[in-house]
This record gives sequence, C-alpha cells and structure tokens, in this order.
Amino acid sequence: MKSISPIIWNGLSLELLDQRLLPEVERYVHCHTFDDVKKCIEKMVVRGAPAIGVTAVFALLLTARKYLQSFAGPTEKHKFFFSRFQSHLETHGAILKKTRPTAVNLAWGVERILNKSRNLKKASPLEIIEGLEEEAKIIFDEDIEINQKIGEQGAKLIGDHYTILTHCNAGALATAGYGTALGVIRSAFRQGKKIMVYVDETRPFLQGSRLTAWELQKEGIPFSLIVDSAAGYYISKKDVDCIIVGADRIAANGDVANKIGTYSLAVLAKENDVPFYVAAPLSTVDMSIDSGKKITIEERDAEEITKFRELTLAPVGINAKNPAFDITPAKLITALITECGIIKLPDQNKMIDLYNKRGEHS
Amino acid sequence: MKSISPIIWNGLSLELLDQRLLPEVERYVHCHTFDDVKKCIEKMVVRGAPAIGVTAVFALLLTARKYLQSFAGPTEKHKFFFSRFQSHLETHGAILKKTRPTAVNLAWGVERILNKSRNLKKASPLEIIEGLEEEAKIIFDEDIEINQKIGEQGAKLIGDHYTILTHCNAGALATAGYGTALGVIRSAFRQGKKIMVYVDETRPFLQGSRLTAWELQKEGIPFSLIVDSAAGYYISKKDVDCIIVGADRIAANGDVANKIGTYSLAVLAKENDVPFYVAAPLSTVDMSIDSGKKITIEERDAEEITKFRELTLAPVGINAKNPAFDITPAKLITALITECGIIKLPDQNKMIDLYNKRGEHS
Repeated sequence: MKSISPIIWNGLSLELLDQRLLPEVERYVHCHTFDDVKKCIEKMVVRGAPAIGVTAVFALLLTARKYLQSFAGPTEKHKFFFSRFQSHLETHGAILKKTRPTAVNLAWGVERILNKSRNLKKASPLEIIEGLEEEAKIIFDEDIEINQKIGEQGAKLIGDHYTILTHCNAGALATAGYGTALGVIRSAFRQGKKIMVYVDETRPFLQGSRLTAWELQKEGIPFSLIVDSAAGYYISKKDVDCIIVGADRIAANGDVANKIGTYSLAVLAKENDVPFYVAAPLSTVDMSIDSGKKITIEERDAEEITKFRELTLAPVGINAKNPAFDITPAKLITALITECGIIKLPDQNKMIDLYNKRGEHS
Repeated sequence: MKSISPIIWNGLSLELLDQRLLPEVERYVHCHTFDDVKKCIEKMVVRGAPAIGVTAVFALLLTARKYLQSFAGPTEKHKFFFSRFQSHLETHGAILKKTRPTAVNLAWGVERILNKSRNLKKASPLEIIEGLEEEAKIIFDEDIEINQKIGEQGAKLIGDHYTILTHCNAGALATAGYGTALGVIRSAFRQGKKIMVYVDETRPFLQGSRLTAWELQKEGIPFSLIVDSAAGYYISKKDVDCIIVGADRIAANGDVANKIGTYSLAVLAKENDVPFYVAAPLSTVDMSIDSGKKITIEERDAEEITKFRELTLAPVGINAKNPAFDITPAKLITALITECGIIKLPDQNKMIDLYNKRGEHS
C-alpha cells in the first residue's frame, strides 16, 4: 500500500507536497521559516482543514525555534523573558489565523501550541523548543489516529456495493495522512467492501480531479470523475447510495462550513432521500459560534475562476466572485461522523454532548 | 449595439463562429459541404439547441444543392428521380439527428426541410434548390423573431433591480441571433430595468464563462461569473430573484432536458422559494415523448473533463463520465416562457394546449 505524506517534518524544516502541481508533478516545497509556511497556506500548496491546522503548528514551531535559538546556544547574550516570547508566538498565531479564515482547525492548531508554550513558562529556551516540537509531533500523530477512528466509525454506514459521492478532497492530502470523508471511503474499501465513488471535480481549484482522483487511483478504489453539476444527475437517477464530505468548521448548532458546492449536494440529497454525511475531527467544531450564518466565508481571487494556469477562461476585465466555502444547515445533515462516534441529525444539544466527549478523549 | 451573428449563410457556404475559441479569438469556420457542417455540430463549433436546429437546415441545403446541381446545369445528363433525391435527403437528415441526440430542434429543423422538399416533388431541380434555400432563410429569420417574442414575454417576469441567475449559454450564440433565456435578460435590460446576472461558468465546456460572459460584456449588462457549485450559495443567501435557463428538449408532460446542472438549480430554487423559469421556442417541445425520463441524454467524451486544451486536469488513465444534459421534472418549473406566452406550472394538459397554439402561429 503506497502511503501519501503531504506534510513531512524532517526535524529541521517542513516539507509540503505541492498540491497545486498534482497530479502531474509530485514535488515538495521546503519551508525553512514561518513566512515560507504562511505563503504555502495562502497559495494552497497545502489545503484541507486538518492539514492546514497541522501545518500551522509547524509554522509556529519554526518561528519559536528561531526566536529561542538566540537564547539557547552557548553564546547566550540576552536575558530571556518568557512573556516577550509568548507575545511573539501569539502575534504569529494571529497572522496565521487570517490566512484562511474559514477552517477552524488552523486556529485550533495555533491554540494548541500557544497553550503548550504557556505550560512551559518556567522552562529554559532549549526545553521550550523541545517541548513545542514534541507537541507538534503529537498533534501530527493524533491527526492520523483520529482520521483512522473516523474511518472506522464511518465505515459502519457504508454498505457492500455502495456508490458514494464525494466533493473536494477530504483525503490524506487534506490531513496529516489518512483522510476524513476519504478516510471513511478508504476504511470501507480496506474492509473488503465493493464500493464505487463519484468524485466531483470541485471547481475552481479542482481538488476532486487533481487530488481525490489521484488518491483513489493510488489506493485502487474504483471511481468516476464528474463535473460538479453532474452530481444532481446521478443522485436523481438513484445511482448514489450516500454522500460524504469533510468540514472546515462546524458551528455549535451543527451547521457545517465546507467547500463551495457542499450545500447544493445536501439539498439534492434531501430532495432525493439520499443520506448526507459529514466526516470531521472534533477539532473542527467551533462551540464559540452558535450558527453557521456567523462563519466567515473566505472570498478568494477571481483569477482562480477566470484563468487556469496560463490559459484564459473568460473575457478580460469581467467581474467574477469566488466564495471558497458555503454553509450547510444542520437540518440537512443525516449524520456527523467523528472520532468519538456518529451523531445522527446533529443539533445544538447533541453538539454540546459531543463537545463534552472531546474532554474525555483529550 | 454590436450584433452577434453565430451563423451566416452567404448564399454559397455556411460560416459558423467557432464557439470553441471564444472569447479569445473570433473566427468563423467556412463550411462548403454537408460533412463540414456535421463536424462543426459534433465538435461544438456551434452549439445550443436552436442554433444547431438552424445549422442542420443549412447542412441539408448544402447536400441538396450538391445533389441537384448535377441535374440543374446546362450539361444535364441523367434523368432526375425525385424519390431518389428525397431518400438522399432523408438519409442525411438521419445522420444529422445522431450527432447531438438530446436537442430536439435538430430533428425539428431536419423535418422542416424534408417537408418542404416533399412539397416540391413536382418542381425542377433548380426550383427545389431555390425552394429549400428560401425555406432555410425563413427558418433562420423565424428563429430570431421567435427569440424576440420570448424576450418580450419573459421580460414581464423580470422586476426592476432583479438579480437573475443563468446557466450555460442560451443567448445569441445558442440561436440564430438573439437568445432564449439570455433573450429574456436582454429584453429586460433594453427596457431599462436595472438588473444583475450571476453567470454559472458551466463546466466542462464553459459556455457560461466563455460565451455568456462574452455576450453580456458586449451588451453592457452587469454580471458576475461564478463556478457552478457557487449558485447554491447565492440562492441560499436570498441574493437571487429568479433563475432562467434555456431547454434542449421539452417532453409532453413539461419535463425539460437542458445543460447538465439545470436540475440542481431547479432543486435549489424549490428549497429556497426562488422562481425557476425555462425559456424556449415551441420547436423545443417534443409531444412524441411523454416524459423526460425517455429523453436520450448525450454522453460526451471524458477528455472534456480530464483535459482543458493542452493541459491535463486529472491523473492519466482514470474513468470520467460526461453526461451533457439532465432532466428537470415539470413540477420544479415555475413557468415556461415561449413565443406564444407564459405557461405557469407546466403539465401535460397545458402542454397540449400549447402544442395546439403552435398550429395557430405557424
């Protein structure tokens, strides 16, 4: 089984598989500084809510190490003030949070590192570096472990000979290495279930045709690529047994922000009585936001729609709008698949129960 | 006002604006033979149900003229048998009908010419050429006239300051020169209504970003281009007052075949209480098919999805499915806009009434 490693921490720098170049070219971008990583998140070298959460963690590790090294070496010249260091880290955390505003995992990853650092306030600079690197590796390993649990949970919902429709890429490439929605599909397949997947190409960034298709091909899972607007055609023909997508942020009432087009699929699922599942780690839940309506939707550059690489797709000078996410109301979600179990018809009360479970598992 | 002429009959040959090259290049393909035109229909140099109907008419004219000229010149050598000629024309009509199976206008255009020819069975070869050319020009002129009537009718449904969403291209480029769905938008705009249009890019052929955007830019109508899957986002935000699309074939019960993605828009419209309009000439109605389920859906080459010009969009060797149309059930259609008036909530009885009206107008 070939493994997919979108994020590699080599102990000195972060290597990110350039997801803009896939499937044609498999090339890693080497990030030696915080700014290197920040640019990679902005330009979508790395994307997918859990993946950018993990990546942000290493971005903070890089800036923390650079800051602390001047105090940690044998030539230590300045007095080390922890509060100044923590403030430096918080400033850089805030910068990261602004790069991609919709996915909450980014903020969650930043908070994990800031908390860890706070707990190390009495430690030496060298001990802080070691402690933060250890925490970053734990977050990385946890992400894969959590994905595998999501996969196990979700696979219970996948029957033999199911045809599953998915949107965007919620696979190994969107995480530290296994996948959420695609993790469920992967687990069902590895259990020996005969499944078929419809892959939405997912305009404008083509996460479906470039990334999900690439992952499924590597794993040998049968699939057909379709344009986003063909999903309704197959759903209405009763050719889809269930729809599974990931999530970028889940509000306290169960509303889900995910890749643009997710809402349309949920409405099509309702119209045709097809189960609509969202697979996501609990780190995607944002209890501070009571409704999906309050989630910030990132608007990306219009050129992502009007151009494809060097080719022009539309007349010069026109207006285009490029919202990267939409909100699916909880009432359209058949079940939420998390590492702590399956929550059928999520609502505010069930989300509170789920949030409390998170405590038990962390 | 710049005019758009996708189809030009110059008396000797047919000039088709190459819609594959727009908006970057405005170039006509000169068709001197039936085969030239057939290839242009297959390769989507010309597309849009009414446009391919009119184009098919001229394809038959070209083969009829070539056949008849050998009998019409001063060096006439063979005896002319009308039945052989008619059989030749019918064979070529059948070939044309197979090129794009979903749009009924193609079959309708072919039948108009075959009927005209039958009525000329006692005429000389030269008279038949003249008669068929006259009929072809009438069909061409009628198409523009009918579009303008559809525009007038439909504009009644467009309020001032409306935001309208459209899919694919049902404009001048899809017809002999004015447009059906885009004709309604054009008419409302020319009446002075302040409108804004959301244009779905319409994968995979990008009729929205390449063609509709080009037409709206030429006409000065304000619009924003969006990816197909962003339509639901704007509809759910109550940012769309109505949706207008064209049609490729309308069954006797009012079900509509149109560009892939139309069905999804109709479902989104229903979920959000937004009016969903279909604008089409009566030549698009096929009373011989009692339900949309029986309409043949054209499956086009997978490479339209996996490649864009020379660029590869997906891993090599994968499976992709490319249905070019889908079926929107009549129950999801708020109104059908035709040259004979607006039919609210179309059903079988209303379609029969409409069909009878066609007789009155023809």
